Amino acid sequence: MVAVATTTIARAADPLPSWNHGSARQSIITFVERVTKESSPDFVPVADRIAVFDNDGTLWSEQPMYVQLAFVLDRVRQLAPQHPEWKEKEPFKSVLAGDLKAIAAAGETGLMELLAATHGGMTAEQFDKIVIDWIAAARHPKYARPYTQCVYRPMVELIAFLKANGFKVYIVSGGGVEFMRPWTAAVYGVPPEQVIGSSIKTRYEVGADGRPVIVRLPEIDFIDDKAGKPVAIHKVIGKRPIAAFGNSDGDFEMLEYVTSGPGLRLGVLVHHDDAEREVAYDRKSHIGRLERGLDEAARRSWTLISMKADWKSVFPSPTPDQ
Amino acid sequence: MVAVATTTIARAADPLPSWNHGSARQSIITFVERVTKESSPDFVPVADRIAVFDNDGTLWSEQPMYVQLAFVLDRVRQLAPQHPEWKEKEPFKSVLAGDLKAIAAAGETGLMELLAATHGGMTAEQFDKIVIDWIAAARHPKYARPYTQCVYRPMVELIAFLKANGFKVYIVSGGGVEFMRPWTAAVYGVPPEQVIGSSIKTRYEVGADGRPVIVRLPEIDFIDDKAGKPVAIHKVIGKRPIAAFGNSDGDFEMLEYVTSGPGLRLGVLVHHDDAEREVAYDRKSHIGRLERGLDEAARRSWTLISMKADWKSVFPSPTPDQ
Ligand SMILES: [Ca+2]
Ligand SMILES: [Ca+2]
Repeated sequence: MVAVATTTIARAADPLPSWNHGSARQSIITFVERVTKESSPDFVPVADRIAVFDNDGTLWSEQPMYVQLAFVLDRVRQLAPQHPEWKEKEPFKSVLAGDLKAIAAAGETGLMELLAATHGGMTAEQFDKIVIDWIAAARHPKYARPYTQCVYRPMVELIAFLKANGFKVYIVSGGGVEFMRPWTAAVYGVPPEQVIGSSIKTRYEVGADGRPVIVRLPEIDFIDDKAGKPVAIHKVIGKRPIAAFGNSDGDFEMLEYVTSGPGLRLGVLVHHDDAEREVAYDRKSHIGRLERGLDEAARRSWTLISMKADWKSVFPSPTPDQ
Repeated sequence: MVAVATTTIARAADPLPSWNHGSARQSIITFVERVTKESSPDFVPVADRIAVFDNDGTLWSEQPMYVQLAFVLDRVRQLAPQHPEWKEKEPFKSVLAGDLKAIAAAGETGLMELLAATHGGMTAEQFDKIVIDWIAAARHPKYARPYTQCVYRPMVELIAFLKANGFKVYIVSGGGVEFMRPWTAAVYGVPPEQVIGSSIKTRYEVGADGRPVIVRLPEIDFIDDKAGKPVAIHKVIGKRPIAAFGNSDGDFEMLEYVTSGPGLRLGVLVHHDDAEREVAYDRKSHIGRLERGLDEAARRSWTLISMKADWKSVFPSPTPDQ
């Protein structure tokens, strides 16, 4: 009992208990202090304290494949009995054979066909339920736990720390917005209306029963990646955030846009350098490639988080890494 | 001094002082009580207390023309010296001649040309400043006051009342989102990120000086009207609001979508029936036509606000109507 109480007190004192003391942690804390202290020349009113976070590889694991791709593959397998033609038709044939290389070779056209078949053709409410059921049942292939337990504990603490300091936190992800919204409030403390992502087109329809629904069409509306991220931030939020967190070159423009506004700004990149507790990858990776960001971080005064050095733990406990 | 103090106390007691006691005011207050009282079977948690408001004709005056059209006409006049060709080119020629009928006759194509010429071809920040300067200087042709003083005082009180009861209030307007965002926080208490509207396409660009900007392109991205309203609500907010306020058939689908969700819902239409203090118009009007809404309000249990009967005053004081 004494040990538990002491831990609780220590945690209350340290808002970032899963972070090692070092320059990354320090640069984040200093930034928050400077923009929140009213007497500070860098003070920012609450209304303008907006922070944006990428999701895949920044808030949760994106290896060995994007979680949404795992969802797509599971959906194809699940729907296959209703589509006997898929047995002979690419890219479905390769999905059913579990041939990841052939799926990758099918390229963007193949991916679009998979997205259309698995993400379109139902109402928004039906898709919500499909995501909720899948995310509850699916397990990460390496960590053998729900994907929502493969989120980065230090980043979840960071979101809570920013919120406690008056920040409004948005997720700005290349992933599908409706693939994230059903669970981000419970897992990250970020409500659906603060999630921005890629989207497919939708149509408003009143059914034969008189009930209006949002129907998901098998057609891409917007890809929220690279230069699309600042465009989406401007479209949805309508002001320039003061802090941005990412992990790959898909976040470069978002960090560039955020950190070149007037006043104090914070740009942060999560560097996956921890082969032991997670996966080490950067310049050569097909998933979450980080090259330009690494080259320019110093010149742009962006903070690099070394997962290996800066994080005491990676996943929530009980965790495979502790 | 005593009179002032008494007024203050009376106001503090009544959250809607500009509303006459009647069925419209009562239906709104009853709804708010039922969704906010924890012991009520209709209780709604704060996270789901989302209310959406149309803007033109619902929150501010849209007669004798949409405010944004007045802005477009002023912009054309202001830019005309740099465009000598406009003197001979429609629809600019008619704008410069002040011929509203000819502008209307130019139809959608003409309007798009006007929008492209006045709303595109600059950065988002430049457009912000243009709007801020215009809205400060322009005067309503009939009320001879700034447009931001032609907002409906009872509706501004209603927004404050909903916010005080844990509601997150969004504006969902057919008007341009960037034409509203620069002033909605000060005038309505609705921050930029809670404003949804029509939009033009934008592009992210890094200028020769290395400064990244959002460039406004002369091309429509999205029209936030009719069935577009529920689509935009779903896209941006990602959940179904529980209360919707509009004034024309352009809001029909929004009210239909909102009021057919599960649980207690509120749909409200402002009926412009006050020829004396504002303008009386509905079924036959080209601006803000309200026909289907009037026909179906009773059957759908939507509340009709009679501006004449339900509002003690229409505009903020000092006002032309008091
Ligand atoms: Ca990423
Ligand atoms: Ca309207």
